Amino acid sequence: MSDATRIMRVADRFAMKRGGCLAEVQLAYETWGERNEHDSNSVLLFTGLSPSAHAASSPADERPGWWEWMIGRGKPIDTDVYHVICVNPLGSCFGSTGPASINPATGRPYGPDFPELCIEDMARSAHALVDLLGIERLHTVAGVSLGGMTALAYAIEFADQVEQLVSISSAMRAEASAIAIRSLQREIIRSDPAWKQGWYFPEAGPVDGMRLARKLGIISYRSAEEWRQRFGHDRLSPPGRDVHGFGLEFQVESYLDANARRFVSGFDANCYLCLSRSMDWFDVAELGGTDEAALARITAHRALVIGVESDSLYPLHQQRALADLLCELGRDVEFVAMPSIQGHDAFLVDLERFAPVLRSFFKDHALLAEKQHYLVRQCAANE
Amino acid sequence: MSDATRIMRVADRFAMKRGGCLAEVQLAYETWGERNEHDSNSVLLFTGLSPSAHAASSPADERPGWWEWMIGRGKPIDTDVYHVICVNPLGSCFGSTGPASINPATGRPYGPDFPELCIEDMARSAHALVDLLGIERLHTVAGVSLGGMTALAYAIEFADQVEQLVSISSAMRAEASAIAIRSLQREIIRSDPAWKQGWYFPEAGPVDGMRLARKLGIISYRSAEEWRQRFGHDRLSPPGRDVHGFGLEFQVESYLDANARRFVSGFDANCYLCLSRSMDWFDVAELGGTDEAALARITAHRALVIGVESDSLYPLHQQRALADLLCELGRDVEFVAMPSIQGHDAFLVDLERFAPVLRSFFKDHALLAEKQHYLVRQCAANE
Repeated sequence: MSDATRIMRVADRFAMKRGGCLAEVQLAYETWGERNEHDSNSVLLFTGLSPSAHAASSPADERPGWWEWMIGRGKPIDTDVYHVICVNPLGSCFGSTGPASINPATGRPYGPDFPELCIEDMARSAHALVDLLGIERLHTVAGVSLGGMTALAYAIEFADQVEQLVSISSAMRAEASAIAIRSLQREIIRSDPAWKQGWYFPEAGPVDGMRLARKLGIISYRSAEEWRQRFGHDRLSPPGRDVHGFGLEFQVESYLDANARRFVSGFDANCYLCLSRSMDWFDVAELGGTDEAALARITAHRALVIGVESDSLYPLHQQRALADLLCELGRDVEFVAMPSIQGHDAFLVDLERFAPVLRSFFKDHALLAEKQHYLVRQCAANE
Repeated sequence: MSDATRIMRVADRFAMKRGGCLAEVQLAYETWGERNEHDSNSVLLFTGLSPSAHAASSPADERPGWWEWMIGRGKPIDTDVYHVICVNPLGSCFGSTGPASINPATGRPYGPDFPELCIEDMARSAHALVDLLGIERLHTVAGVSLGGMTALAYAIEFADQVEQLVSISSAMRAEASAIAIRSLQREIIRSDPAWKQGWYFPEAGPVDGMRLARKLGIISYRSAEEWRQRFGHDRLSPPGRDVHGFGLEFQVESYLDANARRFVSGFDANCYLCLSRSMDWFDVAELGGTDEAALARITAHRALVIGVESDSLYPLHQQRALADLLCELGRDVEFVAMPSIQGHDAFLVDLERFAPVLRSFFKDHALLAEKQHYLVRQCAANE
């Protein structure tokens, strides 16, 4: 958890969508920039499955965040203009309540006793946080991947408090192939004997299962074209660790292995299982009867929907379907199809393509004028 | 193993490409049709990683084979015209020598003592079989997937004995993304405690690891588009087996599970590991210094190269590269890009598209004339 992370107890007795109840919910979040005079500049950002709320550096924590090039002074989401709040979702393990948190009823981690987690629970708990922060309306709710689903649920369930929606590499529901991959990841984790039906000790979790599941995750997050260019058929020189005659021989194997080993040291397996499953369960139609009825609940007047041509997890046509439907419902929609080769993960790495699109969307002239006014007034006061 | 399967001891002291030596090699094979008068009608067929030599039914074994609609009387590869030989490759476990075979030196299965297996070893052992059968020239060497690589190696190494080459959903080498997937499959199998560094008892192998690896295999063999159409976001009704709160809920999960469970009952894990690794290692450039020099060794005058647009394991551009290079080298090449949605596995299931292409290629007018002649002569003899 970052030094800049704040923790807020957002609810006692939090009832979950699929049943069950949490005795208390806390959420971890980070903020950048200041709320303006009219409290009209807050951007709520939902992360993908694995990152923490540390989306960008700040004086309180100078380590680069997962969207460092997107959020900050003079950056596409300009913190001289906007007040950005990034939330670690309910169910995760970076400060928010999740399966790794202590269950007050037993004094030990919830583990498998954590109630079934849905995207809608993440949205509703984040709304409680926004409420406690005293923010009545959000300038923008934005999300990437899992977070895009959460942003969509938020914009539907709390429609009158959301002015703009940004959905990146996400969808109204998962495709069968994405469900297949995530289902397999979960089964790999659960097949590790160290998982112990979820009752592992925190320091002795199923690291092998998590490492293998993460490798499959990375395969689904990137694209064949990117790896063709980066790794081709290139071998390691010298070869890597040898494991019973099946050592690492190819560059791509070494890349996967190093990435997966970094990941598993920090992520709780039960949290991963719950968050992963919530993405399969999500279906926007449940929020209105049909996709159209659900999206019709959105009152945000403007939306930015971004998809990536090489994304095999949330294919481009899924973002196009969301944008088209919002457009048919009369919203002002900007749909961008990125030709990035980095697949689902492009929003993390393809600065060159994503930064200008986000910068342009967040060039809100009213807010910029207000900021100018504010600066002028400040100068006057200082004189 | 099929009742129609024959076993041939093809070598004593068989030296392997990457070092090591097998004291004896036997291969399992099946045949359909008869060798003609000039012994000019033999088609050698190499399978993908997992099937046996039982490619089609016959009076000796009436169960449908893995390419039932392709091989037989009046079928695209017409056994009234052709003599078809399908080989279970070296390293597999359906009658051919492989890691599950008894090591004569120890009296127990080779297991991890099986020497490192290459595609070229499969080609060379199959050549020994063809030699022992007394066939001097092959009308066609054909292969699918792994078998396409073997057919290519065969057509290079034994060029003067091959008249035509058929390569389906294969490549001159694996892509980085295919290596990543197979490497992960192998690691999943090796991570199953029941693998025991390869020294499991045959009846107590790593079935869980094999089941998970097979699921990943299926994900890589089919396409997102096919599953979108077949399964969408559809749930099972009633839900499937519940496993610690993570039961099968979606149609696609049930499909994967049923398929994987069928598979693991029949396939030896060490064989799977060796065959899988051989596909990553294969690089046609090793057979000539460069791709071009390797393919220049081929003297087959005619080739059919088929790729599938939705194949993510051996993407279409890989088959196009093979066809283009053969064409540049002056071979008569037919390249077919199939718009099938079944991905890498299309050759197994997309009868409608594959059958006419193969039928047309195998309409060899010289042979058909000869058959006509033969029938006429038979009639004369019978009168």
